[in-house]
Amino acid sequence: MATDQAAATEPTPYEQFESRIERISNIGNAAGILRWDQEVVMPEGGTPARAKQLSTLSALSHELLTDEETGALLETLEAEELTADQQAVVREVRRQYDRSTSVPQELVAEISEATSNAHPVWKEARAEDEFSIFAPTLEELVELKREYAAHIDPDADPYGVLFADYEPYIDLETAERVLERLREELVPLIEAIADSEVDLETDAFSGTFDDDDQEALARDVLDALGYDWDRGRLDTAPHPFSSGTQFDARVTTRFEEDDLLSSITSTIHEFGHANYTLGLPDAGYGTPLGEARDLSVHESQSRLWENHVGRSQAFWECFLPTAAERFPSLEGDDVTPRAVYESANQVYDDNLIRVEADELTYHLHIVIRFEIERALISGDLDVEDVPEVWNDKYEEYLGVRPETDAEGCLQDIHWSHGSFGYFSTYSLGSVLAAQLYAAAEADLGDLTPAIRNGDFADLNGWLREHIHAHGKRYTTPELIERATGEGLTADPFLEYVRAKYGELYDLE
Amino acid sequence: MATDQAAATEPTPYEQFESRIERISNIGNAAGILRWDQEVVMPEGGTPARAKQLSTLSALSHELLTDEETGALLETLEAEELTADQQAVVREVRRQYDRSTSVPQELVAEISEATSNAHPVWKEARAEDEFSIFAPTLEELVELKREYAAHIDPDADPYGVLFADYEPYIDLETAERVLERLREELVPLIEAIADSEVDLETDAFSGTFDDDDQEALARDVLDALGYDWDRGRLDTAPHPFSSGTQFDARVTTRFEEDDLLSSITSTIHEFGHANYTLGLPDAGYGTPLGEARDLSVHESQSRLWENHVGRSQAFWECFLPTAAERFPSLEGDDVTPRAVYESANQVYDDNLIRVEADELTYHLHIVIRFEIERALISGDLDVEDVPEVWNDKYEEYLGVRPETDAEGCLQDIHWSHGSFGYFSTYSLGSVLAAQLYAAAEADLGDLTPAIRNGDFADLNGWLREHIHAHGKRYTTPELIERATGEGLTADPFLEYVRAKYGELYDLE
Repeated sequence: MATDQAAATEPTPYEQFESRIERISNIGNAAGILRWDQEVVMPEGGTPARAKQLSTLSALSHELLTDEETGALLETLEAEELTADQQAVVREVRRQYDRSTSVPQELVAEISEATSNAHPVWKEARAEDEFSIFAPTLEELVELKREYAAHIDPDADPYGVLFADYEPYIDLETAERVLERLREELVPLIEAIADSEVDLETDAFSGTFDDDDQEALARDVLDALGYDWDRGRLDTAPHPFSSGTQFDARVTTRFEEDDLLSSITSTIHEFGHANYTLGLPDAGYGTPLGEARDLSVHESQSRLWENHVGRSQAFWECFLPTAAERFPSLEGDDVTPRAVYESANQVYDDNLIRVEADELTYHLHIVIRFEIERALISGDLDVEDVPEVWNDKYEEYLGVRPETDAEGCLQDIHWSHGSFGYFSTYSLGSVLAAQLYAAAEADLGDLTPAIRNGDFADLNGWLREHIHAHGKRYTTPELIERATGEGLTADPFLEYVRAKYGELYDLE
Repeated sequence: MATDQAAATEPTPYEQFESRIERISNIGNAAGILRWDQEVVMPEGGTPARAKQLSTLSALSHELLTDEETGALLETLEAEELTADQQAVVREVRRQYDRSTSVPQELVAEISEATSNAHPVWKEARAEDEFSIFAPTLEELVELKREYAAHIDPDADPYGVLFADYEPYIDLETAERVLERLREELVPLIEAIADSEVDLETDAFSGTFDDDDQEALARDVLDALGYDWDRGRLDTAPHPFSSGTQFDARVTTRFEEDDLLSSITSTIHEFGHANYTLGLPDAGYGTPLGEARDLSVHESQSRLWENHVGRSQAFWECFLPTAAERFPSLEGDDVTPRAVYESANQVYDDNLIRVEADELTYHLHIVIRFEIERALISGDLDVEDVPEVWNDKYEEYLGVRPETDAEGCLQDIHWSHGSFGYFSTYSLGSVLAAQLYAAAEADLGDLTPAIRNGDFADLNGWLREHIHAHGKRYTTPELIERATGEGLTADPFLEYVRAKYGELYDLE
């Protein structure tokens, strides 16, 4: 009897495993708060101490994950009968465990140091507009990341291994197929737009817009979309982001006094991320069941809200009166929902900068980075040749050639972080956004009237049910298949942009 | 040769020990940010996840501290030749280690659960004005804390053991002697003031004061005192506090629209705490050498700035023009530095509430709590008799009898936290503030002219040199002795209040 009681109170292997991963999750979420604090409220002088705090949390989390006890528990559990949810948790942790234990700590430390050092070098190179300043650093990072990939899987395409750090379940071939398709279809569409004689309204919101009023309007937008203020907040940050958990998912934005529209679309974008996080199940907190699927799915949520909702004419039919209340200068006859819609969907065929790109040319910026990264990591492209290849590709795909490195291959921070493989998740997110939106409309009917009425409950309910509520229960392809009935495909995105831009630019 | 090299790169026991305690310190500082976030910016809904994050960090820190490796390193180091600073670090960690390892984890968990549960019960009891609601909970907490004390030192006075959680190096006899002295000297002084026929100005700042303007003025105060904004920030919180490290020490305050003076003195109080933290040496970050000495010393810093500076006539000669710029209503002839000085130093002989007490009666509130706690923990007083004993003591020492429990023994939150022994550090802090201020004036001469000129550099330089820079290098008695040339004594405090209130109330 005494023995039975002891056995009854002894935690099962799954319970032990769960405690361990909840601990790892809580450390990660604590680190998330520290990073939010650093970006949003921390006084500048706090940097050295914050770096030490974050590095301690990261080391603790890594040690818990790679501890042999974790490995032993995984082996035990993989031999047990588990529920489907438990199996999913084990699958996710196994993946992280294998990746983390296969890379030697010295290499992790070396990469971490190299990327810390790379950031100021990249900044200087960009400021000086001189790629050769950054080239040796980029060379070193490429080399280190190749080595990293070889530790994880010496037989796999190293770029595929790196890509899987950001998007573990969509294989590289699928990503490549989607991106090629985008290139093939978007290049002629953008050319047709460039040839169009239609003159879209370019700047429906002209003028200067006070920060405080813009902030009030950003709160109006979040109110309109149904943001849960009891579990969130809005602040400003130099580089807007959203972060947190299902209990506390915060949004940041920024304001430019001459660009009201970009502050609104950026706020809607971050709402999309936060809204996904808020839809994760409370009960899953602390395990992968309560965590968001990876970058492409996250980006699908931000882009669905930003592009399919926030850049629609229906949304502006709903929201323009609110904007005009905050900014009486918008009450004139010229500022119509149609004019805002046109301004929000202008295609810029002479733009060199990814973060300023429109919904179409954006993907060619990504395709170029993807092709260059692949070639760099495979060794087919030398670092010193990056600027020329970059510029050639811009000329070929976008018809515009950067005249400087600063507005060419030095424009993005990602490579200084050693993040090779990240960029494509942005495009995959857009593609998936369109696919999900089409699937939602297939289930719910045309969403335009609801958006026009400011009623987002059905759309959000659909996303909650088909995406948010599942956390990491399914792999990304399973999640997409279950939500849309098919694998990841660019078709709905291409259909969406052809219809939208065909109408806007009067294409045949 | 190879062996020598290996030996050279192998960390010494002290280095291993230092890494370990830096890790513990970083976890604690990360938890500090999470608590700041919770009090100041966290959306309400974040509570359940935050509790789990904090509990994880606390468990990790406890495990690292009580790990047998820590014990083994302590033993090794205690047998080694160390520098004085290293010895101090070992002394501080040894103390924490012994305390933490002597209390069983089950009891720690039980206390933690009991205090969590106690908080709502205390709130209800206070709201219902019914001590009997809280009595069983208080009984349980007293019992648990007695048990806790017995684990740490079964032969010591249990109240002394509890007191040492807050003030490890000042012995209970010293604390008791100081408090008795305060009671003996302050009771007749307060009576004399009650008998005085002088009518002090009671409300120099009458009117209503807008929150935004009060906040601007709070920033003016912090500017005037020399707060380092590069390592700090000001926010509002329902219960003002300050927290952080030498790299990032933040202040919170609160505003009441009809009480400008209390918002200013509260801001100065919190500045005193943050200013201490900011004076800790950067190089000591992560070890006790970079951490503040305990509660009495911390409180000495807040009270020195609040009372000796912020409630002085010289300060208002300096600062009143700034206040009048923010609030033009203060520009009248009635609002003189003398009038503000009188208002800020009014003695309220009919006040029942500790947090509303003046600089004199405050200590009788503390003496009463100290005497009741001692008797409760020793078993000389039954929980059920607390209200009557409380009321009797108020009548005896302060000449005023609470009519309800809510404004009697239920007014403070501390007992619901199980914090027996905490209160006296408030009075010890005041006593030490006066002692330090007197020692600073003995070194620097009369500080009044500098305060009148808004020049706080000499005073702060003295505090930096004699208190802040040392972190936990010295025990509290050593630190006091080195700074003032004598042990903790109430003499300077009594001399200060006799001179100040003698002049204000025209006593002989």
